[in-house]
Amino acid sequence: MRKIEKAFGAVIRKRRLAAGYSQEDFADHAGVHRTYMSAIELGKVSVSIGIAAKLAKALQTTVSELFRDVESPRESEHAGE
Amino acid sequence: MRKIEKAFGAVIRKRRLAAGYSQEDFADHAGVHRTYMSAIELGKVSVSIGIAAKLAKALQTTVSELFRDVESPRESEHAGE
Repeated sequence: MRKIEKAFGAVIRKRRLAAGYSQEDFADHAGVHRTYMSAIELGKVSVSIGIAAKLAKALQTTVSELFRDVESPRESEHAGE
Repeated sequence: MRKIEKAFGAVIRKRRLAAGYSQEDFADHAGVHRTYMSAIELGKVSVSIGIAAKLAKALQTTVSELFRDVESPRESEHAGE
């Protein structure tokens, strides 16, 4: 997978952990299969914008905010909220 | 397709027109098949975040900015740049 999937997966993982979810609980909460959730976090699958929207909603944020982290990795270092 | 694909397609179309590209020229510029470009603008296909990144780059913007328009349609009304 390309760099963007890896970066996106890392952002999801960081925010999921910051929100206090285990990967399995978060998958259930977001309505995504558990194995797919694992692959997303590892950047191993292509993610559709529909899935990105589902994950954003489950993290109580927006796709735009998620990609702000993806596209400005340095800034997101101290975005622990 | 779901609402997000429609909204995303509309944002791409608006920004592509604002940048002065025909749909075919923009598809070539972005490195996306012409028929796929048409389907994206109509919200008829699932779009991956990799394709979203390609389109953002071709529009000299970011995925985050594109989704700011997608997720806040009212604000984007006067974002004619």
